[in-house]
Amino acid sequence: MTTTVTTAVPTTDPRTGQEADTGLQTTAPEEVAACVARADRAAPQLSALSRAVRADLLDTLADALEARRADLVETAGRETGLADARLQGELSRSVFQLRLFGEALREGSYLEATIDHAGATPLGPGPDLRRMLVPIGPVAVFGASNFPFAFSVPGGDTASALAAGCPVVLKAHGSHPLTSQLAFDVMEAAARDAGAPEGVLGMVFGQAAGAALVADPRIRAVSFTGSLSGGRALLEIINRREEPVPFFGELSSLNPVVVTPGAVAARAGDLATGLFGSVTGSGGQLCTKPGVAFVPSGAEGDALVDALADLTGHGAGHVLLNRRIYDAYAEITGRLAAVPGAEVVAEGSAAAEGFTVAPRLLTTTAKQLTPELTEECFGPLVVVVRYDGVDDLQHALTRVPRSLTATIHAEADEGALSTDLAERLTPLVGRLVFNGYPTGVRVSWAQHHGGPWPATNSQHTSVGVSALRRFLRPVAWQDAPEAVLPPELRDGETGVARRVDGVLTLPAQA
Amino acid sequence: MTTTVTTAVPTTDPRTGQEADTGLQTTAPEEVAACVARADRAAPQLSALSRAVRADLLDTLADALEARRADLVETAGRETGLADARLQGELSRSVFQLRLFGEALREGSYLEATIDHAGATPLGPGPDLRRMLVPIGPVAVFGASNFPFAFSVPGGDTASALAAGCPVVLKAHGSHPLTSQLAFDVMEAAARDAGAPEGVLGMVFGQAAGAALVADPRIRAVSFTGSLSGGRALLEIINRREEPVPFFGELSSLNPVVVTPGAVAARAGDLATGLFGSVTGSGGQLCTKPGVAFVPSGAEGDALVDALADLTGHGAGHVLLNRRIYDAYAEITGRLAAVPGAEVVAEGSAAAEGFTVAPRLLTTTAKQLTPELTEECFGPLVVVVRYDGVDDLQHALTRVPRSLTATIHAEADEGALSTDLAERLTPLVGRLVFNGYPTGVRVSWAQHHGGPWPATNSQHTSVGVSALRRFLRPVAWQDAPEAVLPPELRDGETGVARRVDGVLTLPAQA
Repeated sequence: MTTTVTTAVPTTDPRTGQEADTGLQTTAPEEVAACVARADRAAPQLSALSRAVRADLLDTLADALEARRADLVETAGRETGLADARLQGELSRSVFQLRLFGEALREGSYLEATIDHAGATPLGPGPDLRRMLVPIGPVAVFGASNFPFAFSVPGGDTASALAAGCPVVLKAHGSHPLTSQLAFDVMEAAARDAGAPEGVLGMVFGQAAGAALVADPRIRAVSFTGSLSGGRALLEIINRREEPVPFFGELSSLNPVVVTPGAVAARAGDLATGLFGSVTGSGGQLCTKPGVAFVPSGAEGDALVDALADLTGHGAGHVLLNRRIYDAYAEITGRLAAVPGAEVVAEGSAAAEGFTVAPRLLTTTAKQLTPELTEECFGPLVVVVRYDGVDDLQHALTRVPRSLTATIHAEADEGALSTDLAERLTPLVGRLVFNGYPTGVRVSWAQHHGGPWPATNSQHTSVGVSALRRFLRPVAWQDAPEAVLPPELRDGETGVARRVDGVLTLPAQA
Repeated sequence: MTTTVTTAVPTTDPRTGQEADTGLQTTAPEEVAACVARADRAAPQLSALSRAVRADLLDTLADALEARRADLVETAGRETGLADARLQGELSRSVFQLRLFGEALREGSYLEATIDHAGATPLGPGPDLRRMLVPIGPVAVFGASNFPFAFSVPGGDTASALAAGCPVVLKAHGSHPLTSQLAFDVMEAAARDAGAPEGVLGMVFGQAAGAALVADPRIRAVSFTGSLSGGRALLEIINRREEPVPFFGELSSLNPVVVTPGAVAARAGDLATGLFGSVTGSGGQLCTKPGVAFVPSGAEGDALVDALADLTGHGAGHVLLNRRIYDAYAEITGRLAAVPGAEVVAEGSAAAEGFTVAPRLLTTTAKQLTPELTEECFGPLVVVVRYDGVDDLQHALTRVPRSLTATIHAEADEGALSTDLAERLTPLVGRLVFNGYPTGVRVSWAQHHGGPWPATNSQHTSVGVSALRRFLRPVAWQDAPEAVLPPELRDGETGVARRVDGVLTLPAQA
């Protein structure tokens, strides 16, 4: 007889640090397996639903979340310490995301439907070939601490996997178990009422359950937003599987901001305000938070740094999400401050209660920018790097790690410098921002939220419509009878864009 | 002082087993690093060339290979033992492939150019976002033993990486070093004459050099066609890198063929001939070779098996590519024959010279189909699995490993069975073939040559136009000045298909 030990899952109020009981338990291995089995059974049923029905299902989930907005936001507020306005906006984003993927489903060109008719080719007779993307199968989605909605249970990974036609088994983040459970209950009930196959949504609690989930051979892809060490651990489990599967990790990002001499001369004050807002928004706990900013030396740069120091010094405390992030902030800011050449030039005040910390501003010089100073630090901290001329800047940029984003603040008359900086920064990142801030990621068709490792695996996005591509794989049918083909690959008008004999063709107008 | 030891690279005539000197040496670590450094310097230059110029470069390479056809085929014939007709066809395919990628470049929709204009959104004001795929950077391409052209130096991986805008460093396969060197010399000279940046093509010899290549941090993606163990070894090197990069391995595939009762009743003789041709073509050394065929029990199935046994028994010997494959054929066929329930029912004759082996036919029953019998075996061998009715077949199919392809031979009046089999087989494979054979992979827009592990990583293809996608990554530009944007993302007509504010739009007709 084996006895499975499960443990209680507590919730913590980060404003006080007080733990409370949730009534939830970590998920036992056999229940993880049962959950994946349900997802595996649901996979062909979900895949067989038409695109229109899947789009309607996403709309239904969006409506259900909207209907429980007050409860969801209130619960998430207690568990994360995030402000009401931020959580309202995040829930709106999650709801919008579900609907946007529904639109993409209805439009259908994400399928990449392609037909090559049989016929003579320079290499001899060719068979009829038809290619399309199909769902990859059950997906494990790991919720993130810093987005209780948009990168957790009702988030973009769930939305894009369901849109792709893949059942989702969630690993709830320990930072917000009650929010996860509530969102899950709302979505599961809505899916059931809408007649979705049983098992399209499942959820597990606890680190061991998450590891078991990733190791399960029926899981066909894993998405994770979190720390580099957490991502590495999951990747190791995947590499020990008999069949490794795609891993979509969004792990770590420094998001350099470069301020040119022209920009600092024109708008030092605005830059200080904008940068401070971007660094401290959501307590600096965004994957796109600018961790390092390059500012020219000299009086105009001093004006920016002085203004930023002033804002930081007068800055209120920020409640961080959990004890781990709180402890790491103290540890990393301490480590950064101890690097030769680094100086803490301003620090705000913070109540000593719970996981509250003060914003901090560090400075150094481009010549003293070492790898130790480019460590990602979650929380309201930025390192300002002063540079002496363009060469000094360019040289320092070679020491900046790969990231989700890079930002350039430049004036219109600095065209050559802008182009030069863009050429240098593009290989390092997935998104290049001009005269703005990397935080606040637009959810749209053209978004790319990814970048070379450790930002992500570089080829896929976790925000925007093309996030769908992570959970799809191509299949080609050769000389297949019409009845076997998916509707979108059959002869005649199908309502989706297709490439036919090499020529991209739009659907006939309705 | 360090001394680097390089060793001679021999060539072997597989028809005799005789080794000869080539004058080539394995590549020393410092030369591997120098080669990658040249590729790294070439990367931004190649990326900066217009699509039209890159397409012309591919055409130039195709022309240069065509001009040296006789030498290339003759050299490859000596090193691989493959027949002249096969090598002529393979070189034609490689040349065609280069030109097809050129066409895809000129057409331009592979870029996935997407524009979301700035404006109001349900989540507030959105910035201008423009997304496009860009080259991933220098790529390591490992040549395969079984395709001295099409999956080696002038093959699809090289063609698609160059088309994507990525410099290529090749690891020559030890089975055909002289062919590799000749193809490389031809292509490098043509690239140089065409004014391509220095370093767009590099090549290294030897296993240690290959390992050093994959470990080099400047290499941004790795493609490999070969054994599962070889692929696993490269993946381990990648996972030990500070920055893991995408690995595109095409590793192992059993390619099940299912013959329905209707098909065997209608055309047992043709099926025997077709299957024998597919199993023994190129000595059975194709990644799409059918390794297992399901045939109904009973008299009609017996007729197919008898005809296949007759062809096999009278079959001539096949020269295998190298000693490793030759030894493995003896070892694996012996191991398969020793599995309880497996029986060698026919064996051809083979001259005792060189790496020549005889075709073999094994049979077993669906009930006795164990994992041991589904081991991939390079060479002219097929395992025929006899089944008693559809349930017996369906049950056996659950024990078939994931593959590049699956094939269904069925009659038109077996629609329900065809659909049922297709539903069962599609999750296991990347291409589903009807009433044909999986060997002979059409190079076209709709091709997909991939499948769940160990076929490939399931999401990408190594044949067909979308093979390009492996060597591209998305970048988004936010509020970027026109001059910084790639031409395809600027305002106005650009000649490529784009998605603008969610709507896919074709370029204006020329």
